[in-house]
Amino acid sequence: MPASGSASEFSIIQRFFNKGGSQPSTCLGIGDDCALMTIPDGYQLAITTDTMVENVHFFAGADPEQLGHKLLAVNLSDLASMGATPVSVTLALTLPQVDEHWLAAFSKGFFGLAARYNVDLIGGDTTSGPLTLTVQAFGFLPKGQGLKRSAAKVGDAIFVTGMLGQAGLGLKICQGYLSAAPDAALARFNRPDPQVDAGQALLTIANACIDISDGLAGDLGHILEQSGVGACIDWESLPLSDSVTAYIHATQDWAMPLVAGDDYELCFTVSPEKMGLISIPCTQIGVIETLPGLRISKSGRVQTFKAKGYEHFSE
Amino acid sequence: MPASGSASEFSIIQRFFNKGGSQPSTCLGIGDDCALMTIPDGYQLAITTDTMVENVHFFAGADPEQLGHKLLAVNLSDLASMGATPVSVTLALTLPQVDEHWLAAFSKGFFGLAARYNVDLIGGDTTSGPLTLTVQAFGFLPKGQGLKRSAAKVGDAIFVTGMLGQAGLGLKICQGYLSAAPDAALARFNRPDPQVDAGQALLTIANACIDISDGLAGDLGHILEQSGVGACIDWESLPLSDSVTAYIHATQDWAMPLVAGDDYELCFTVSPEKMGLISIPCTQIGVIETLPGLRISKSGRVQTFKAKGYEHFSE
Repeated sequence: MPASGSASEFSIIQRFFNKGGSQPSTCLGIGDDCALMTIPDGYQLAITTDTMVENVHFFAGADPEQLGHKLLAVNLSDLASMGATPVSVTLALTLPQVDEHWLAAFSKGFFGLAARYNVDLIGGDTTSGPLTLTVQAFGFLPKGQGLKRSAAKVGDAIFVTGMLGQAGLGLKICQGYLSAAPDAALARFNRPDPQVDAGQALLTIANACIDISDGLAGDLGHILEQSGVGACIDWESLPLSDSVTAYIHATQDWAMPLVAGDDYELCFTVSPEKMGLISIPCTQIGVIETLPGLRISKSGRVQTFKAKGYEHFSE
Repeated sequence: MPASGSASEFSIIQRFFNKGGSQPSTCLGIGDDCALMTIPDGYQLAITTDTMVENVHFFAGADPEQLGHKLLAVNLSDLASMGATPVSVTLALTLPQVDEHWLAAFSKGFFGLAARYNVDLIGGDTTSGPLTLTVQAFGFLPKGQGLKRSAAKVGDAIFVTGMLGQAGLGLKICQGYLSAAPDAALARFNRPDPQVDAGQALLTIANACIDISDGLAGDLGHILEQSGVGACIDWESLPLSDSVTAYIHATQDWAMPLVAGDDYELCFTVSPEKMGLISIPCTQIGVIETLPGLRISKSGRVQTFKAKGYEHFSE
């Protein structure tokens, strides 16, 4: 075995990532060929995975503490969109070199968010190579209650949590746009909050649900296609911060809150008879319709909206 | 959504990876924010993840069909080493560009092995970036029966399945070593067979078990450390192919079958009273002892052996 203090895979895991666990579902954590998990009676396991790559999902030199937070947040956001309660994660790290300051900060950001939701890190893999970070997240769902993309019904009201375009404005600020009040937008871009509690509160209330990772239009589009329906969104009802509103006035880029990614809010649909049961802060922005496609009502005009979310490899 | 035939993430998944599933445990597969899985009563879930990076784990230009096979094989091998029955996997692909021939061949190798064990691909992520491949594999284990690294006992006999150093010889052939009969060694290096059936057959029989991914000495070393024991291996009893024997005669590199990785055989320990229950082909190579550390008995001499397995980032 490597001497104490050497930068082997073993010592990286021991020093920065082997924090033990507190979930009763974790029967065996880091240190064997597999982790072992039990699932309580009456529950299903929800599983998701997301990868972040340097120069693709984040800038070279990005703050490692924010990166650790965000990598976990985007995965917890996928659990939130099904209404699952997060329990544990694995982490596959590909690192160009061992930078102990980087690892300490990354681990701090990662475990800071993990502690908030009592999530155990139960396993992973550490390899050398170009900086690539993959998390796999596990959550529990009462059997049959998971919120799917395919369950929207004609007549459902469409809601979003939080505000739209905040992270998109944060990205534009990183790229040079001057905002009078940049802090909230930058925070949303760099340290998104997964809507875990909101997702669980929507179980048995919402029909369809998705998290807004690639922009409202693209992500709502997944609900529409998989449910075989269409929608009309009322642009004037979109929840926008003062900074985003100022950005739109300055640039005329009114579509930004529809296409910008990284907000990690939830978009969900609820049938009219269940709207009174909603217990979380949210905003109705439109209605599910029979006619396929996404339409935007703005300034009294309805137009078909075709912009799509971020696509890797688009031609 | 992308037009049919465009090389978007969506179309890559649809064309090359969305093959449906046949496991009753898969309640929801590819296409939503999470996959959903049920675990049968009385079972635990075994979870493992392994990443393969170009120029680290495989040569640039490596045969993509072999790569698809090997990526899945190394993960199934981790399940095998716990005795778990594989059921499903997720796949996180980071690709520098969309090469449809590469994807078709990779997918063929991946699903060829998946079909052999009836393993469903239930989700994943596809991003652009340097070629990095991560699989997460799931298997079922009767509760409490998982074969751990930490359960070896003094007096246990140590066994391995298959032959040692075959993949190591395959790597040396790729690097220029001339073997009179290279085919079996190259096949073992390029298309390892995970010992899934052997692992399951060892449940309730073996005490400790590990798969030999980083070399017998290093991997057995994990069992010794985690069990708080030592071992003596009889070099003359190591199961070696004629090609590996010829390599050792030619090079005097007698330690190769102890330190070469990638064999993906199982190394396990069995208490004397259970040795009669073993139903799989395997070879006894040594004994667990009280004195910590690994010793090799060779030509009538016993020597302490310190070579370790492959370490990323070793100084």
